[in-house]
Amino acid sequence: MPATAPSNAHDVELLFGLFLMFGAAKLTAEIFERFRQPAVVGEILAGVLIGHYGFGWVEPNEVTHLLSELGVVFLMFNVGLETKPAQILGVGGTATLVAVLGVILPLAAGYALMRLPPFADGVSNIEALFVGTAMVATSVGITARTLASLGQLGSQSARIILGAAVIDDVLGLLVLAAVSSAAQGTVDVGALSLSALLALAFIAFMALLAAPALTRAAPHALRLRVGNAEFALAISLCLGVAAAAVKIGVAAIIGAFLAGMALAEAAEKRHDLHAQVKGATELLVPFFLVNIGLQLDLSVFADRRTLLLAAALIAVAVITKLIGCGLGALRLGRRGALQVGVGMIPRGEVGIVVAQIGLAMGVIDNRLFGAVLVMACATTIIAPPLLRPLYARTHEAAG
Amino acid sequence: MPATAPSNAHDVELLFGLFLMFGAAKLTAEIFERFRQPAVVGEILAGVLIGHYGFGWVEPNEVTHLLSELGVVFLMFNVGLETKPAQILGVGGTATLVAVLGVILPLAAGYALMRLPPFADGVSNIEALFVGTAMVATSVGITARTLASLGQLGSQSARIILGAAVIDDVLGLLVLAAVSSAAQGTVDVGALSLSALLALAFIAFMALLAAPALTRAAPHALRLRVGNAEFALAISLCLGVAAAAVKIGVAAIIGAFLAGMALAEAAEKRHDLHAQVKGATELLVPFFLVNIGLQLDLSVFADRRTLLLAAALIAVAVITKLIGCGLGALRLGRRGALQVGVGMIPRGEVGIVVAQIGLAMGVIDNRLFGAVLVMACATTIIAPPLLRPLYARTHEAAG
Repeated sequence: MPATAPSNAHDVELLFGLFLMFGAAKLTAEIFERFRQPAVVGEILAGVLIGHYGFGWVEPNEVTHLLSELGVVFLMFNVGLETKPAQILGVGGTATLVAVLGVILPLAAGYALMRLPPFADGVSNIEALFVGTAMVATSVGITARTLASLGQLGSQSARIILGAAVIDDVLGLLVLAAVSSAAQGTVDVGALSLSALLALAFIAFMALLAAPALTRAAPHALRLRVGNAEFALAISLCLGVAAAAVKIGVAAIIGAFLAGMALAEAAEKRHDLHAQVKGATELLVPFFLVNIGLQLDLSVFADRRTLLLAAALIAVAVITKLIGCGLGALRLGRRGALQVGVGMIPRGEVGIVVAQIGLAMGVIDNRLFGAVLVMACATTIIAPPLLRPLYARTHEAAG
Repeated sequence: MPATAPSNAHDVELLFGLFLMFGAAKLTAEIFERFRQPAVVGEILAGVLIGHYGFGWVEPNEVTHLLSELGVVFLMFNVGLETKPAQILGVGGTATLVAVLGVILPLAAGYALMRLPPFADGVSNIEALFVGTAMVATSVGITARTLASLGQLGSQSARIILGAAVIDDVLGLLVLAAVSSAAQGTVDVGALSLSALLALAFIAFMALLAAPALTRAAPHALRLRVGNAEFALAISLCLGVAAAAVKIGVAAIIGAFLAGMALAEAAEKRHDLHAQVKGATELLVPFFLVNIGLQLDLSVFADRRTLLLAAALIAVAVITKLIGCGLGALRLGRRGALQVGVGMIPRGEVGIVVAQIGLAMGVIDNRLFGAVLVMACATTIIAPPLLRPLYARTHEAAG
């Protein structure tokens, strides 16, 4: 009998813990939605509430870690499933310009901020790079959800925002791949270039070779006899590529995202496959968000310098996307550029994923993790109320 | 930082383990389906192959236990979702008679077998009861899948088999509730009656009060603002009732089954909710089946007495369902009675769940677990090839 054969008390604790995490996440998400705040932030808050600094009902452990890991892998797999390679390759120059400027400015400014007094004190080069990386990627989900609720998904600026957010995700993951593999060794330019090349080769392989191969092979999957073969293959691919990505030194989420993207064409219009993957994802993602709240060490904010750092990060995060992405979209005119700039502000779960990876790798400490988390949540909360009037005025002008 | 902050190597191992378990399960399932054998048995075999007695790639641990537990909870939640209370209450007397006789005979015969020489040696009363309990419940899934593949789901005997299998599941869970809560204390009739009553009250509450209340409340769920509110509520209910069931001494799977059944009316025709729950279930169930294979201690079969016991259990399992259920369906004529009797033979995952609970509670040992597992697999493999000619002849006679 395995040493871990569970007692009955163990099962009660396990199931109640899962129920508490999932139920609390959805309850706070509902409350946040009612106050027109992003559900993502509510679910993280649920983790804070039931964790060490709240009611103390749940401690982070091996089980919460596993579910959290699976949650973020499925989250990025789902984002990938919505991202067709052709959509990225075929998107206009404006979106690419918006994305590239919107990656370079936050990365450089975030890194520079951490190398300047008073923040540079005790912060290593790689820590500063990680903070910069966490400021790169726009959260496609938050932006898309807000634009949809405004009925503006079809507008030109919205299409540029979505295209740029996807490119920016890929660039962000590329930067993360380079920085995180560099963090494992010594930081030298050769190794950094090598890991960036490896990540790029992996991404190119998945997008240019695996994706078309899967699209061509998809009809043959129907010849399989195993029940629900498409879902079984999709999940196997997601777990397999995520594991392979970690093995070659790229983050699991990049593998999951690429696996999803490689399947995007093949999975198009397969409603049941999408619904089933969505079911698995929506079961697991709350554990990822709640686990972030569980891991948040609120005591770091007793130090006023952490609060100052968080405020500086928020300012840099907002200004760099506003200027970088706004400049990229200048041809849309001032209002269009503003819409794009503001639309790209939310960092949401992608920034949090980067911070979490940094924390898990032991590269950044609790203080930086807390400050980045506050930045990610704040930019996510700020953007929707700023977007509404910008589009409302367009609407009035048009009407 | 939590003590369990993972290293990169830990994540590689975790993700590769999950990929191996899921991928191996689906690969063997595909091979089994091609040889017209039940996929369930294939997925268990996958666990044996990648485990201690095979390639030794995966060891059972806290993580495989968690996923396995979630897998069986979702499996039974899904079975519950397909089981409307009205369908059970409204089914004919024949199905009830088939179910009741098909529960009493295997339970009594299984128990008696374990109290007789040469098998009684070193076997306690509660162990014998557990073995009897594991022989009770027919696997609805296996039976339904076989009848569907024969195109016979609409026949009278098929409807009786399905109705009886559902009643027999509820009775089986009731017996399990009584036996497993008795196993936690001393075995006295008072406690046994009390726990049976408690289980019955819990089942009655869920079926008679919670189910109609949820059916009435369902339209209001649409007023919730949180994304995908129905799914969030369904999952919360599943985890919450499963945890509550364990808390009052009933198995988690009974809670999950009842939560599903209580939602069955409310969830009817909500295609996306079903697809999403199916996605979560199909992601998790392979871990349950593979974990069984991982836990199987093949060395117990070195002892010829274990093989003898397994053979005796298979014989008793087949004969008692054939006679019990066949007698119950005698009004259908000899062929109809045979169809029903054979259709009720597969124990599949339900018998395995009971054995697993017994093993996890420390009530039955590896030797009995192995013998019951062989019985469950053998009855599942035997039934489909016996059913086919019985229905084929009907078909020829009809044609």
